Amino acid sequence: MSKPMTTTAETAAGIRLHDPNVRGFASDNYSGVHPEVLAALAAANDGHQVSYGEDDYTARLQELMEEHFGPGIECFPVFNGTGANVLSLQSLLPRWGAVVCASTAHINMDENGAPERVGGIKLLHVPTPDGKLTPELIDREAWGWGDEHRAQPLAVSITQTTELGTCYTPEEVRAIADHVHARGMKLHMDGARLANAAAHLKVPLRAFTRDAGVDILSFGGTKNGLLFGEVVVALNPEAAHGLVYLRKMNMQLASKMRFMSAQFIALLEGDLWLRSAAHANAMAARLRAAVDTIDGVQPTQKTESNGVFAILPEGVADRLRTSFRFYDWNEAAREVRWMCSFDTTEEDVDTFAAAIRRELQQREG
Amino acid sequence: MSKPMTTTAETAAGIRLHDPNVRGFASDNYSGVHPEVLAALAAANDGHQVSYGEDDYTARLQELMEEHFGPGIECFPVFNGTGANVLSLQSLLPRWGAVVCASTAHINMDENGAPERVGGIKLLHVPTPDGKLTPELIDREAWGWGDEHRAQPLAVSITQTTELGTCYTPEEVRAIADHVHARGMKLHMDGARLANAAAHLKVPLRAFTRDAGVDILSFGGTKNGLLFGEVVVALNPEAAHGLVYLRKMNMQLASKMRFMSAQFIALLEGDLWLRSAAHANAMAARLRAAVDTIDGVQPTQKTESNGVFAILPEGVADRLRTSFRFYDWNEAAREVRWMCSFDTTEEDVDTFAAAIRRELQQREG
Amino acid sequence: MSKPMTTTAETAAGIRLHDPNVRGFASDNYSGVHPEVLAALAAANDGHQVSYGEDDYTARLQELMEEHFGPGIECFPVFNGTGANVLSLQSLLPRWGAVVCASTAHINMDENGAPERVGGIKLLHVPTPDGKLTPELIDREAWGWGDEHRAQPLAVSITQTTELGTCYTPEEVRAIADHVHARGMKLHMDGARLANAAAHLKVPLRAFTRDAGVDILSFGGTKNGLLFGEVVVALNPEAAHGLVYLRKMNMQLASKMRFMSAQFIALLEGDLWLRSAAHANAMAARLRAAVDTIDGVQPTQKTESNGVFAILPEGVADRLRTSFRFYDWNEAAREVRWMCSFDTTEEDVDTFAAAIRRELQQREG
Amino acid sequence: MSKPMTTTAETAAGIRLHDPNVRGFASDNYSGVHPEVLAALAAANDGHQVSYGEDDYTARLQELMEEHFGPGIECFPVFNGTGANVLSLQSLLPRWGAVVCASTAHINMDENGAPERVGGIKLLHVPTPDGKLTPELIDREAWGWGDEHRAQPLAVSITQTTELGTCYTPEEVRAIADHVHARGMKLHMDGARLANAAAHLKVPLRAFTRDAGVDILSFGGTKNGLLFGEVVVALNPEAAHGLVYLRKMNMQLASKMRFMSAQFIALLEGDLWLRSAAHANAMAARLRAAVDTIDGVQPTQKTESNGVFAILPEGVADRLRTSFRFYDWNEAAREVRWMCSFDTTEEDVDTFAAAIRRELQQREG
Repeated sequence: MSKPMTTTAETAAGIRLHDPNVRGFASDNYSGVHPEVLAALAAANDGHQVSYGEDDYTARLQELMEEHFGPGIECFPVFNGTGANVLSLQSLLPRWGAVVCASTAHINMDENGAPERVGGIKLLHVPTPDGKLTPELIDREAWGWGDEHRAQPLAVSITQTTELGTCYTPEEVRAIADHVHARGMKLHMDGARLANAAAHLKVPLRAFTRDAGVDILSFGGTKNGLLFGEVVVALNPEAAHGLVYLRKMNMQLASKMRFMSAQFIALLEGDLWLRSAAHANAMAARLRAAVDTIDGVQPTQKTESNGVFAILPEGVADRLRTSFRFYDWNEAAREVRWMCSFDTTEEDVDTFAAAIRRELQQREG
Repeated sequence: MSKPMTTTAETAAGIRLHDPNVRGFASDNYSGVHPEVLAALAAANDGHQVSYGEDDYTARLQELMEEHFGPGIECFPVFNGTGANVLSLQSLLPRWGAVVCASTAHINMDENGAPERVGGIKLLHVPTPDGKLTPELIDREAWGWGDEHRAQPLAVSITQTTELGTCYTPEEVRAIADHVHARGMKLHMDGARLANAAAHLKVPLRAFTRDAGVDILSFGGTKNGLLFGEVVVALNPEAAHGLVYLRKMNMQLASKMRFMSAQFIALLEGDLWLRSAAHANAMAARLRAAVDTIDGVQPTQKTESNGVFAILPEGVADRLRTSFRFYDWNEAAREVRWMCSFDTTEEDVDTFAAAIRRELQQREG
Repeated sequence: MSKPMTTTAETAAGIRLHDPNVRGFASDNYSGVHPEVLAALAAANDGHQVSYGEDDYTARLQELMEEHFGPGIECFPVFNGTGANVLSLQSLLPRWGAVVCASTAHINMDENGAPERVGGIKLLHVPTPDGKLTPELIDREAWGWGDEHRAQPLAVSITQTTELGTCYTPEEVRAIADHVHARGMKLHMDGARLANAAAHLKVPLRAFTRDAGVDILSFGGTKNGLLFGEVVVALNPEAAHGLVYLRKMNMQLASKMRFMSAQFIALLEGDLWLRSAAHANAMAARLRAAVDTIDGVQPTQKTESNGVFAILPEGVADRLRTSFRFYDWNEAAREVRWMCSFDTTEEDVDTFAAAIRRELQQREG
Repeated sequence: MSKPMTTTAETAAGIRLHDPNVRGFASDNYSGVHPEVLAALAAANDGHQVSYGEDDYTARLQELMEEHFGPGIECFPVFNGTGANVLSLQSLLPRWGAVVCASTAHINMDENGAPERVGGIKLLHVPTPDGKLTPELIDREAWGWGDEHRAQPLAVSITQTTELGTCYTPEEVRAIADHVHARGMKLHMDGARLANAAAHLKVPLRAFTRDAGVDILSFGGTKNGLLFGEVVVALNPEAAHGLVYLRKMNMQLASKMRFMSAQFIALLEGDLWLRSAAHANAMAARLRAAVDTIDGVQPTQKTESNGVFAILPEGVADRLRTSFRFYDWNEAAREVRWMCSFDTTEEDVDTFAAAIRRELQQREG
């Protein structure tokens, strides 16, 4: 009983219940953890570290974030993207605030009303052709300041890259930020796929975030090879209030935070964040290039990230799904979404593209 | 570019920033991850698995939970204890519900108002000598049904083991459950240290939970050697509504859930859950036995779990803290809390006890 | 000191600060209180009555509501329309529920996010040409049941008459109710101008509410000559939960409720409700008939209630407003709204119509 | 059809359903409306006035409030006391704020959790002997600033006069305000019975509110002879944020606000507020003087307002209640509460006191 229980020699092998060779195109969340991230968890283990963020790893993460975004930013690791978004928006807004966003935004479509229910935030959402807001689109909902009957539009949220795989240029972000700030509003970026944007734009992270006027950022990790974890980065801390309290009261405070921070250190200390995202983007580009040559597949969006969106003829999607997992995006329009991940291989893509081609040819024949 | 990015050979070693030999008595959250749990994460990695809980690991976890608690229960892995508690209570209550709890309960003292603010729940809390409710104590706040001016007391929450290290017997839980149910209320157990209770009581988990009438359980993992993760276990699913939706809207839904479930499988497949908890309890008992022989140290609670509570003479705590990390429990009363963990060694305890003895003797001398 | 303080002889005359002869077309909320309602307040005064609704007036109101809507309904007087709507929707929905409504709905546009912030409700709103939902329009947002990422569409809210002055026929309501119920959803009607609908349709109140399948109703009084007050009427009490508690916790419980109920008795005991609404409708019809003969005024909606909507040439609205108060409806489109009230006179309408005509003619000339 | 519908000649008499001669001691909410207030409603009627507070009456109310409290204050009429309290506290607090209050406070005991559920506020309540906080009592819960696990105590709420009929002196309020402000907190006063305090203390309203350091005030009208209505008075507007928006989103914005303001003008233009409150206090004092001479009645609190609290022998309360309506305060302790109102007469009191005396004598006999 007296020997420490953590001696590695005692460690069981762990139980594998799944086939590690099966991969699909359903979601970047279906993939696992990058091995460098797993190694980081092991390295951060053993011994005691102060919980709730006063540990050595979280301190290092702050330094790394400053290297990427410049001095003066503040970072708050949280559990998931919905948490990061709700915290970010709450920190920007008084209780009577509303947020202008694209109708397709994750905060509007995929969070079961967390921004409204937990955040107490009204969303003023605008239809867009490609998931991207513009100053003009923002103005459709950004009005009515001072009218007590209207939830006050005091922030705008954009997603980079968007839920439709498109990417804002730094100039586009800057134009939005200037527009927004000129009206007394603040700018949030949902960066669940932030690294994919940097890989696509081939610019540093800060070029299209802090330098472009974004006030607060949900920096995504999970979709880029982490076990779990996102970081709220207050790029303009004067615009963001009470994050330390908001994180706890919104149930997003991890006790053993060293392990959340260690994962992000694995991403950001070297170039893993960029390597993984660039690879996922490249795989999507490869898939797009392939389907562009297949008659009957109608891509619906630019492929500027790790996802391909396309309309398929009746029945094709379901037949493909007998072998490959992926989701409908808009069932009524027969539009599907194919996502690539850090672990997608060229062979995965080529096999899938061949299957699509086969389906379409059979259909014609 | 075409080779898969997960080849283990490429894996960096991971960065260690801390001294893995430093351990203290501050919190069971200061400890790291049990190596068997880390191994489980690695085994669950690679390949694609459906996200958000439809994976093979979460399915296996459900089976294991049924082995422990019997058929018909439903389990919902979540990120942290506050999340587990708020979800559990929301699932039991209509919007106008209130919860009777001990004043020292974690939900009342340590969650920055999450039950009230996120859960929309009024807490009706009762002072207790030892952190344990009784039917009589519950009745101090369980009244006023039908009075629209009073938040309706429709659930009771007890903590096992309590925040003060004490443990309800199965009979005590049963008496509370019967009392509560007879009044149309439901019973939640905050089991952040559930395994420690089983280790202390030397009975199966279900003996003092489902079999004793508990309706819903926050089953803690983080304090028992996990990286992160708790499970809401609906022991009486008819009493708990909408957990699948509540989890998402309360920002407690992990996308790569296989890794949360894999950790719990590591705990529950064998006896790791019990081994770790029994060890932590034994270390606390060893510490208690030691301080019981030291004049000037006044233990304040029974040691029925992994924590020792004691009053120290003026100044002693601060001097001890120059070498060992631990927290004040009640600063005004000079009461401190010493927590043991799965990785606490006999040597850790003996060294600490010797230091306490030295401090006290110097004081006398 | 010993004489009762309520002797009418002592009563001061009251202070008049405004010109009682000024009326405009801005809102049915700009008008005052019908004299029969004031008389009802005086009659209900003096002596003690149990507060919070156990008084003789609230009991009588329940009887009157049953006369209108049939036995088995339950009614809950509240302060204002926003309160009535939020209570109604909360009573129909679990915490994870969402409501499908028209984009122009008061709950979406004019309540500063109360449904979201206080009610915890996600609104799924649909653009409509005339403020009216249809089964087809509802289906644009009524989907995704069982998907935990989507706020669950479990209720539909329609406004009668709509914010655009249009009116659902009983058959249209029935078609919506059947559609909604077939999908397991419930139907709320925001009846801020319910009486105007009955006056337009020339059918009893229950014909297009309870008999047409509406589950819960916000029955408006304020816009129909009351001082203040609306009633939540649970037409299908099995669909509506906890209204007695929701009313208090949402700060909508009046202590001296006899005075709220007495006002509604004044409306409903005789035909005041219908008389006033029919008059307001008639005044709007008169205005509409007049402007239909004026070149350059472009009505935009059917006039089926007490409001006229029209597009005016550039500058006309502002010039008219130097003499008559009214609001822009859609400033960008130069669309204005002219509302009539129970106290609008034929002379008011004719004078206003003449002024519009003059403006338009000057413009041409 | 063309004649205006408001011609007084047409007015029905109003329907009386109750006996106006029955009065009891249950609550100051059981009484009706002071005739001067009714007269004010009639005087404010007819013609159109801008809704939602831009009317002549609300402008005059602001002037009158400034006469009472000094220049620079801001006032916001709302529907009821719970609304006034929740708005006031929200305006003082960030989302993570908590409020220290007495355990007996209305916000804690009688609002069905509205402060928690709607306000998102954690209440940190302290037992008191007489409903009054002191700096020492406040300090029992005012601690833990900067600790993210603790709801941050950033405001204190006191009730004047208290729920137990006791009254803070201006010096006591000042001591609390200084204590509170020195710790960076703000001070709210629930003045549901504010006028009764002024009548007891024989000082102007501002002496124990603004001049004593109170930041925001719920100024009660309903319990002092209004139909309905309270006013949130921001005595220190720099401490209170967003009230105009909070009022609407919390469903406390009356459309025909002129009638709410007119009632308060009736109270405050002359001395009605003080006359009514002084009378109610005098009636309570008369009752107290009478019961002080009755053996077996044990008063439990000082009578510094319009209520008398006393313990009665077993069975006496129920027998008295066959003729007089009043409430138990603490049923277990056999403590009852007798409330007087603006319309309580000396004869009412003497008759009731005689009945109490009779009951007690029979009991002895």
